[in-house]
Amino acid sequence: MSQPDSTADLFASTDDDRVVGPLKHVRSVTFDGDVALELGGRLSNVCCAFETWGTLNRDASNAVLVCHAVSGDSHAARHDPDDDPGWWDDLIGPGKPVDTDRFFVVCPNVLGGCRGTTGPSDLNPETGQPFGADFPRITIGDMVTVQRMLADHLGIGRWHAIVGGSLGGHQAMAWVAQHPDSTNLCVVIASSARLTSQALGFDIIGRNAIQTDPHFYGGQYYDKPKRPNTGLAIARMLGHVTYLSTEAMEQKFGSDRHDPRQIVSVFEQRFSIGSYLAHQGQKFTTRFDANSYVTLTMAMDLFDLGVNRLQLMETFNDADCQFLVVSFSSDWLFTTDQSRDIVNALTALGKPVTYGEITTPRGHDSFLIAEDIAQYGPLVQARLGDIDTAPASISEVEELILAEIPDGASVLDLGCGDGHLLAALHKRGHQKLVGVEVDQESIVKTGRRGIDVIDYDLNHGLPAFIDNQFDVVILSATLQAVANVETLFQEMIRVGRRIIVSFPNFAYRKLREDYVVRGRSPKAPGEFAFEWYNTPNRRFPSIADVHDLCRQMSLRLEKEIYVDASLGKRIDADDDPNLNADTAILVISG
Amino acid sequence: MSQPDSTADLFASTDDDRVVGPLKHVRSVTFDGDVALELGGRLSNVCCAFETWGTLNRDASNAVLVCHAVSGDSHAARHDPDDDPGWWDDLIGPGKPVDTDRFFVVCPNVLGGCRGTTGPSDLNPETGQPFGADFPRITIGDMVTVQRMLADHLGIGRWHAIVGGSLGGHQAMAWVAQHPDSTNLCVVIASSARLTSQALGFDIIGRNAIQTDPHFYGGQYYDKPKRPNTGLAIARMLGHVTYLSTEAMEQKFGSDRHDPRQIVSVFEQRFSIGSYLAHQGQKFTTRFDANSYVTLTMAMDLFDLGVNRLQLMETFNDADCQFLVVSFSSDWLFTTDQSRDIVNALTALGKPVTYGEITTPRGHDSFLIAEDIAQYGPLVQARLGDIDTAPASISEVEELILAEIPDGASVLDLGCGDGHLLAALHKRGHQKLVGVEVDQESIVKTGRRGIDVIDYDLNHGLPAFIDNQFDVVILSATLQAVANVETLFQEMIRVGRRIIVSFPNFAYRKLREDYVVRGRSPKAPGEFAFEWYNTPNRRFPSIADVHDLCRQMSLRLEKEIYVDASLGKRIDADDDPNLNADTAILVISG
Repeated sequence: MSQPDSTADLFASTDDDRVVGPLKHVRSVTFDGDVALELGGRLSNVCCAFETWGTLNRDASNAVLVCHAVSGDSHAARHDPDDDPGWWDDLIGPGKPVDTDRFFVVCPNVLGGCRGTTGPSDLNPETGQPFGADFPRITIGDMVTVQRMLADHLGIGRWHAIVGGSLGGHQAMAWVAQHPDSTNLCVVIASSARLTSQALGFDIIGRNAIQTDPHFYGGQYYDKPKRPNTGLAIARMLGHVTYLSTEAMEQKFGSDRHDPRQIVSVFEQRFSIGSYLAHQGQKFTTRFDANSYVTLTMAMDLFDLGVNRLQLMETFNDADCQFLVVSFSSDWLFTTDQSRDIVNALTALGKPVTYGEITTPRGHDSFLIAEDIAQYGPLVQARLGDIDTAPASISEVEELILAEIPDGASVLDLGCGDGHLLAALHKRGHQKLVGVEVDQESIVKTGRRGIDVIDYDLNHGLPAFIDNQFDVVILSATLQAVANVETLFQEMIRVGRRIIVSFPNFAYRKLREDYVVRGRSPKAPGEFAFEWYNTPNRRFPSIADVHDLCRQMSLRLEKEIYVDASLGKRIDADDDPNLNADTAILVISG
Repeated sequence: MSQPDSTADLFASTDDDRVVGPLKHVRSVTFDGDVALELGGRLSNVCCAFETWGTLNRDASNAVLVCHAVSGDSHAARHDPDDDPGWWDDLIGPGKPVDTDRFFVVCPNVLGGCRGTTGPSDLNPETGQPFGADFPRITIGDMVTVQRMLADHLGIGRWHAIVGGSLGGHQAMAWVAQHPDSTNLCVVIASSARLTSQALGFDIIGRNAIQTDPHFYGGQYYDKPKRPNTGLAIARMLGHVTYLSTEAMEQKFGSDRHDPRQIVSVFEQRFSIGSYLAHQGQKFTTRFDANSYVTLTMAMDLFDLGVNRLQLMETFNDADCQFLVVSFSSDWLFTTDQSRDIVNALTALGKPVTYGEITTPRGHDSFLIAEDIAQYGPLVQARLGDIDTAPASISEVEELILAEIPDGASVLDLGCGDGHLLAALHKRGHQKLVGVEVDQESIVKTGRRGIDVIDYDLNHGLPAFIDNQFDVVILSATLQAVANVETLFQEMIRVGRRIIVSFPNFAYRKLREDYVVRGRSPKAPGEFAFEWYNTPNRRFPSIADVHDLCRQMSLRLEKEIYVDASLGKRIDADDDPNLNADTAILVISG
């Protein structure tokens, strides 16, 4: 994020793309009868406001549901170039990752909201007064119930995808938990199975500020001259501080700390960030209802799909869809660890899931910001079906590896690079294929091939996978980059029935000559053309070294294949491969 | 922190050691005349409340000033076993790191506080009413001014040490900035040169909650039936969430999220953390004044010793004392990066400074918690003068290194281990000696020898030091552990006039034989007895490799010393050391 060069930039926030006042393209439908709520109580004649983009195709198979976050609304994107900006314009639109030229996109306002769908500001039919704080306590599940009624109304039996960030991600997961066959794809961005205790603490403080505002009147303020705007503004200020990373805040406010912009406000403005917060807080009160804020944050705080892997697995057990999970490195409100918890439950269940952690300085807000959408958008686009089918180019060594994989085998490729090996297997007809990578560019390339890939560091083992989950686990040209070799070997044995490890042999004749004759660190040719002082490789085993480790760990070697790839020839096992082969492929029993 | 096994533990916080009500051992002094305040205005007949422990010695050279944090008071420690607990009992007391059997310890209540020293709740002589919100805006510098008057009153011309955490650290640094020769030692714990924009944001929100409380009455609430306790409680709740790490909060509240303890409160208690926050918030209002909270947080927010290294260097330029700086890994409110900024200014000025980052899950609160005091306490104790003078044991190779260091040279030892090399130089009479280490245990050992040590990772270069700062820079038996070798070499050249690098030779005869005969990764004997798959070493250069790098970087080799340490013999430079030496010592011009 570049340095602000004017106070206009100082005041910029993702809130700027929110429409204040009437939504020009919103439609609504009112449902007859009652909606039974999860925590008890009912709501009758629920109204659901929504916007749509694109056209529903003949078999209603191209519908994408977009779920908004706490302060959002139905206006996720522009409907035409002159329209008000939408809050997810960079993700949704013609030619965007969620392509409105291909998909029928639906974005409803959530139950409990204040932008058209039934919420606390609406009239309670029993009293003729607004519900206020008497609006029944609702859950994310209740929001989903109303959205499902909307889907029925629109003739959509199964979504092509459900996509949401933050609270929107909660909705996406709740959809799948409640209605396991409701969608082809579930996209969960900057979200979690439940809030951290810290995030919960902040929400509670914000709600307390609203509910103790002298103008709250137990939520019955609609006919009063003043509203609980002070408390609502304080709650929103708190939200803003949590959505930004520490780094982003420093960039925004660090250099001109003592230069506040002058605005009319009851709030302190000694510092630039003070005037920013006051401005954002007040702006929020012009477009959002305090009771809604209480209702929606409480629903988010109650949301709890499980605290441990077993509980999460129970939640997703019946899910019949693919998953895409995305987290952001500097998001301290909805953390990467929380996304990994979700992923680890899905992988353990064998659900098709791709996970990427996007490196960004922009905190929780990232999911709405153009620069970050540029990074994760391609994963969304690919998962929605826009796949790169160009044939993958396979090396000779890789052909030898492929030959060791039985037809139809499920395969886990550790350090899968751009996914070309898995793509070749896919072409061969294999179904269950998963890659593990840490390089973001490689993850996107693998994702673009339509292959599931998980953003995990192999040095932490393979916590995502269960025992004997894969027929084959491949570690190809990756061993030399791994620090925790023993752990990884143990994990590969645990997870795979058969392990295939290929690695460069650091006792290869030419390297020995190098070392002995030149008296220098052996330097493998080709892709290993680094110097001793800057090679990213951590481990430099010879074939004999790896055999020693296998023996020590009592691993059973099923097959040994040795090549001098530089000469394009096979080396027999009894022809001193430790001297004559530059590459080894070992097949080990899991 | 262990899992809470009762709601009593759930409610535990570092606030529990705060005395509510009268302080039994507090004394006070009222100063005649006026105190001129930094931002304009004056206060007359300022009263300063304080407590003391131990006895001032004859030449008043053993006095230690302890500065409390925002919500603190003068009762830093018990005065006898039956006394109320003090907030820093684990650091201060008989036999504790701040040993009250040796030192005369003084802890005053800060100006602007509400525990005895003049503050907003005191009467404004001009109006006969409490100052309230009309209490003049004060700075940390004003707090120091009053403390200096107290020092004069007690007959203390120069402190042996000034020690403070958080806001207390601000005071310690302000003391040195305003009065550069006021102390022998300045100890800055969990602090910063100024708040992050994020921390500032939280403070502003808390103050807004207080100032918009319906019972605030512009700060003139003292004679009203109600006080702005709701706003003050909200501000304190916010503080609590920021003092705990995300991890600590999860441990405390994660497992029983939905089991609140029932307390009487206006605040929401749907969740266990809600009842904790409500309890802590309300408890705070029984012992703290809202106007004081506004006054003190504003002073902390205005505190700004500089945003960049040059400004910080200006601030500390004249300081005539040693420094000890401590930060905590999970403290996200006062970050490690902020402590490093302070350290980098002090090292650039050549001030004697020791810095340690304590690894802990307990967040900002750590500085008050027993388990963390157990880790940093020894550094405080050593810096206060309790030094380990046992002679260091020096290896043969190290004797050769020492022989290359001119008498009286200033020396920087990178990867200094337990500091024994520097201790030997100290014994030889060298004055300017600094170590760099990342291992916490080693840092404490080096500190216990009275040697300055900085907790920095060499892979990030040497940002703490300026060009040509040291006569000699040593990299002894550390090269093999470094990932960013080129960067480090460039940095060593920049910082030192002479560089001495010693390293094991990976082309040593026996290792070559190992490799050639056994066909396995060369494995150096002795301390390098790891396997290829678990060695922590990153680099495996031969003597020739290192020579190549020096040539490539155009470094000038002044001297080459080769040994076969295993045989205890020197190897001549023309006797093929690359084959015959197991260790090399290169002396390079900086």
